[in-house]
Amino acid sequence: MTIETAAQPDTELMVDVALRTFFLSRIARAERLGPEYLALWKQAERLSQGGKRFRPTLVLQAYRAFGGTDDYLAAQLGAAFEILHTAFLIHDDVIDGDDLRRGHPTVSGGSAETARLAGLSGPAATTWAQASGILAGDLLLIGAQGIVAGLPVDTDRRLRLLDLFDESVLVTAAGELADVALSVRLRGGDIDEALAMTERKTAVYSFEAPLVAGAILAGASRDEEEVLSAYGRTIGTAFQLRDDLLGVFGDEGTTGKSVIGDLREGKTTPLVAFARTTIHASDIDSLLGRPDLTEAEAERLRQLLTDCGARDRVEKLIDELTNRATTLVRDAGLGDHFTAELIDLAAKLHGRSR
Amino acid sequence: MTIETAAQPDTELMVDVALRTFFLSRIARAERLGPEYLALWKQAERLSQGGKRFRPTLVLQAYRAFGGTDDYLAAQLGAAFEILHTAFLIHDDVIDGDDLRRGHPTVSGGSAETARLAGLSGPAATTWAQASGILAGDLLLIGAQGIVAGLPVDTDRRLRLLDLFDESVLVTAAGELADVALSVRLRGGDIDEALAMTERKTAVYSFEAPLVAGAILAGASRDEEEVLSAYGRTIGTAFQLRDDLLGVFGDEGTTGKSVIGDLREGKTTPLVAFARTTIHASDIDSLLGRPDLTEAEAERLRQLLTDCGARDRVEKLIDELTNRATTLVRDAGLGDHFTAELIDLAAKLHGRSR
Repeated sequence: MTIETAAQPDTELMVDVALRTFFLSRIARAERLGPEYLALWKQAERLSQGGKRFRPTLVLQAYRAFGGTDDYLAAQLGAAFEILHTAFLIHDDVIDGDDLRRGHPTVSGGSAETARLAGLSGPAATTWAQASGILAGDLLLIGAQGIVAGLPVDTDRRLRLLDLFDESVLVTAAGELADVALSVRLRGGDIDEALAMTERKTAVYSFEAPLVAGAILAGASRDEEEVLSAYGRTIGTAFQLRDDLLGVFGDEGTTGKSVIGDLREGKTTPLVAFARTTIHASDIDSLLGRPDLTEAEAERLRQLLTDCGARDRVEKLIDELTNRATTLVRDAGLGDHFTAELIDLAAKLHGRSR
Repeated sequence: MTIETAAQPDTELMVDVALRTFFLSRIARAERLGPEYLALWKQAERLSQGGKRFRPTLVLQAYRAFGGTDDYLAAQLGAAFEILHTAFLIHDDVIDGDDLRRGHPTVSGGSAETARLAGLSGPAATTWAQASGILAGDLLLIGAQGIVAGLPVDTDRRLRLLDLFDESVLVTAAGELADVALSVRLRGGDIDEALAMTERKTAVYSFEAPLVAGAILAGASRDEEEVLSAYGRTIGTAFQLRDDLLGVFGDEGTTGKSVIGDLREGKTTPLVAFARTTIHASDIDSLLGRPDLTEAEAERLRQLLTDCGARDRVEKLIDELTNRATTLVRDAGLGDHFTAELIDLAAKLHGRSR
């Protein structure tokens, strides 16, 4: 989920300061509550680092575009979305049982390792890992919303930001639940369902909400908010579809992400949902989701997903979504500079290889 | 965790209305996000029902005692603590792997059953159960804090309430983590640690914070807040110690809670930590925490926990804490009526049998 953004150095710095301030205040309080708890907060902070900070960048871009001048304030709001993102990742890793994320231990994975090194049995280590991940995510969720609630802005703006945040969490949780429902095959999952899941799970909190939040903070009009909302959902969906493709067909050296993990997990992405409408459906399902999938079998799956036309259909869908996003903002009167930034972002997301 | 409170019918009604309003607004939005998601929200609402509502009652009692007259406002704040409590229970059940709570299915337990009925394998059902529990708890955490953030009160009061809420979650999570650390034996756990865990895990969010929140909302002084804070932590700890005793020596017919579950889980409660300082330590540890503990072995454990003096020591500690709480409020100038209510509550918690 990394992209090359146009994040300016000062934006990144301000967001880093906001994040560091958040974690320092928590770590200071955690210190008197036990060494394991302190370690948990430090793990959570580590996980919040190293990203490309594109959610805060979107907040700041929208905020400046609509005349906002208090970058520090916008960076706080941006940090809230980064913390929310980290919370979702941590809980996601518990749900999926993932011990590593891009080569680094997850909270649950790192905690399981600590427990094993301390000589705990497998089930005890799992309990410790899950408790650590669940509680760390809880703390970051509350922390993120707390930042939004504490922003020194007028009541109307604050309540609208809180509503936006609340709605983002509500929709993202629905997307996460649908992702798991499709993954464990509690639902069959047609293309429309897989696309709705994609939009809800990623596009809303990662693109739509940060853009709209920056706009609300700066005092944009409802019409302007609505353009950003539609644009954000559209490129956010394209972003996740590209992520799905890179997770199967990408270059591991460039993405830093295994291209066999997703196939072993066997999630019902739109790519897979497309493939299941073709004559290769049963061949694909005989391999997909096997935890012990070999590299040769993975290569066979990639071939099938390509031959059946699913890969092309997802590529075309990304094209369409990118065009739609570009059209949405082109004549929306968002100002030359911001319009160019948004069109540029859509193009970069479209062509990204990592 | 039920107690006989002096909750007035109108208090309960107002809190029920606040809760119902919260869930109705969520359920209306969840409806368009898929049937599983709707079911999740309904499960969450069901879990929030049927409790004794003692946290909201504490909010309202403190609020009225300091001259608060907008009961509806205080009921909102009370509902936030009830929702927070439900969130903690749901995540706790995921961590402990509990399918039932007082005879009713937990979110994770109910979801696992749904998955099994749909023909899913064991591991898939577990994934679904954990995802459901984690997401439901997340949604309620955000919902609870959102209510506090949205209260129509002046900025100073709102920020103090938000700080109190944030600190409650921070301390409770530390207590939960310590509970698990002691339970899986990542830490040895002496008496002081077990007592600190008890205070953090239960007393802060269940007693201290609701009382202080009601006081803040009504505009009490810092001195008055501090008295309530100390009182709340003290009776809250006594409450949990009584809970621990009832979970081992109680009458299942009265408590509605198994008296073998805690022994099978083998958590390091202060009762157990006391026992481990005696010559019966190894006898106790040879039985405690066995998932397949028989009724005869449980009876032997109860005898050992009694004979070694641990049960008496916990009883004495509850006496001391109750006396301390009573002394704290007796001459604190909180007004005759409220002082009597608080002394009465301490006495009721002391003598409760369920």
